[in-house]
Amino acid sequence: MTTPDIIFYTAKVRHGLPVCSAEIAFQEAKADVTRYWIDVANKPEWFAARVNPVGQVPALVYGSPKSDPENPSPGSAKIAESVVLLEFVADLYPDSGLLPKDPVERARVRFFIDAVSTKVFPPFFAFLYRGESPDAFIAAAAEIQELLPPTAQFAVGDHFTIADAALAPFLGRSELYFRNDFGRYGEGAGPPVYEELFRSERFERLQKYFANISSRESFKNSFDTEYLIARAKTRFARH
Amino acid sequence: MTTPDIIFYTAKVRHGLPVCSAEIAFQEAKADVTRYWIDVANKPEWFAARVNPVGQVPALVYGSPKSDPENPSPGSAKIAESVVLLEFVADLYPDSGLLPKDPVERARVRFFIDAVSTKVFPPFFAFLYRGESPDAFIAAAAEIQELLPPTAQFAVGDHFTIADAALAPFLGRSELYFRNDFGRYGEGAGPPVYEELFRSERFERLQKYFANISSRESFKNSFDTEYLIARAKTRFARH
Ligand SMILES: N[C@@H](CCC(=O)N[C@@H](CS)C(=O)NCC(=O)O)C(=O)O
Ligand SMILES: N[C@@H](CCC(=O)N[C@@H](CS)C(=O)NCC(=O)O)C(=O)O
Repeated sequence: MTTPDIIFYTAKVRHGLPVCSAEIAFQEAKADVTRYWIDVANKPEWFAARVNPVGQVPALVYGSPKSDPENPSPGSAKIAESVVLLEFVADLYPDSGLLPKDPVERARVRFFIDAVSTKVFPPFFAFLYRGESPDAFIAAAAEIQELLPPTAQFAVGDHFTIADAALAPFLGRSELYFRNDFGRYGEGAGPPVYEELFRSERFERLQKYFANISSRESFKNSFDTEYLIARAKTRFARH
Repeated sequence: MTTPDIIFYTAKVRHGLPVCSAEIAFQEAKADVTRYWIDVANKPEWFAARVNPVGQVPALVYGSPKSDPENPSPGSAKIAESVVLLEFVADLYPDSGLLPKDPVERARVRFFIDAVSTKVFPPFFAFLYRGESPDAFIAAAAEIQELLPPTAQFAVGDHFTIADAALAPFLGRSELYFRNDFGRYGEGAGPPVYEELFRSERFERLQKYFANISSRESFKNSFDTEYLIARAKTRFARH
C-alpha cells in the first residue's frame, strides 16, 4: 500500500520541531511526513504563491506524485489552519485514536477544541502580546479545567486525542513564558499567572492534566525549551 | 434497528422552525428528531440546569431511553455549539453526504466552516449589532466568495454539506435584514450593503450560490420571513 506523500510546512526552530498542535498529532499518529521548515520572520516567496495564500504555517501539501516542497505539483491538495489539520490527521489515521469512533465522544473532542479556540486563545494572546489583564485568561483556564473528566488522563477519556493536541502547545507556552516573565505585559506580571495556573490548589486538576500531556514523547519532541527561551528573550525584551 | 432518541432544542419562532445551521443539517439528513422550542428571551430554568449550562440554543440531548425534554435522563449526552452539532449530525448520518468521505474534501468543508466562523461572523455582528463599518464584513464576504468553486453548486462540490449549512442562515439573514434596513446601524446603511452583496456584479458568484442554497427545502422550511421581519421591527427599532 502506498500512502500519498504528505509535506508538512511548519515553523523553523533550532532543533527543527516546533510547538504545534498538528506536529503533535502527526507524531501521535506515527505518520510518515516530509517536514519543511519555514522561517516565519523571513518567508520564501513561493510559499504564499504555491502553498498557503495567507502565508501561514502550519500548512500541508497532500497527494502523489512525490513533490518538491518548494514547488509542489499543482494537482496536490493544499491544506491550512490548525483545527482543519487536526481533523485531517485524524481522518488519515482513523486507527490512531486521535478521534474516538463514538459520535458522542467525537462531539466532546470537538467541543473541547472549540472552547480552546474561542475562549482560551483570545485572552491568552491579549495578555501575552498586548499586556491586557490576565483575568479573562485565568477565567478561561478555569472553564477548560471544568471540562476535564475527574480522573481520566486526557481531555476526553484515557486516550490521547486531537483535543489534547490542540491545547498542549498553548499550555506548554503558558507555563514557560509566564514562569520566566516573558510577554508584552508589565514586568513581574507573568509569574503570578504562572503561580496561579501551575502551582495553586485551585488549578490542581489542570496541573495533573498538563503533567499527563507534557510527559508524552509527542510533546517533548516538539517543545524545544532552550530555543523558545532564546527566542522569547529577544521577542519580549523589555526596554 | 432503533436509533437513540434525539431531542433538539432550538429557538422559538412563530412557525416553529428557526434559522439555524443545525436545523438545516438535520433536515438535509432527514433525521428523526424531537424538537423542543426555547424562548431565548425567557428561558426556562431547567434548560441551563439540565441541558446546556451556558443556556444557549442550539443544543441537543442524545441517548435512549426516550426522555422528557424538560427532564432528560442524566445518562443521556448533552451537546451544544453549532459547529459541534454540525459534525455530530454528519457523524450520525454518514450516508447523508453532509460530509464527503474523502479526507481532502472533508478538509475543504472544515476550512470553509472555519472561515465563516472566524472571518465572517465577527464583522457581520459588528455591523448588525454595533453599527460598525460594514467594510470588514464585505471584505470577508469577498474572501468567502473566493473559496466557492467556479461552477459547482455548493461550497465544496455538487453535494450539499455542513459547510453550506453553516453559511446559509447567515446569508439569509444578511439578505433580509440589510434589504429592509434592519440593524443597529445608522438609518439607510443597510440597503447599500444589500445592493453590494446581493445585486452587484462583483458578488455574482456569491449570489448564484445563495440562490442554490436558499432554494432548498431545508432552507425554506427554516427561514420564516414574516416572523423574522416582525421580530426585527421591534428588535431593531430606531428612535
Ligand atoms: N489560524 C492559524 C494561525 C497560524 C499562525 O498564526 N501561524 C504563525 C506561526 S505560529 C505564522 O505563520 N505567522 C506568520 C505570518 O502570519 O505571516 C492556525 O491556527 O493555523
Ligand atoms: N456559539 C453558539 C452561539 C449560540 C447562540 O448565540 N444562541 C443564541 C440564539 S441564536 C442564544 O441562545 N441566546 C440566548 C442567550 O445567550 O442567553 C453557537 O454557535 O451555537
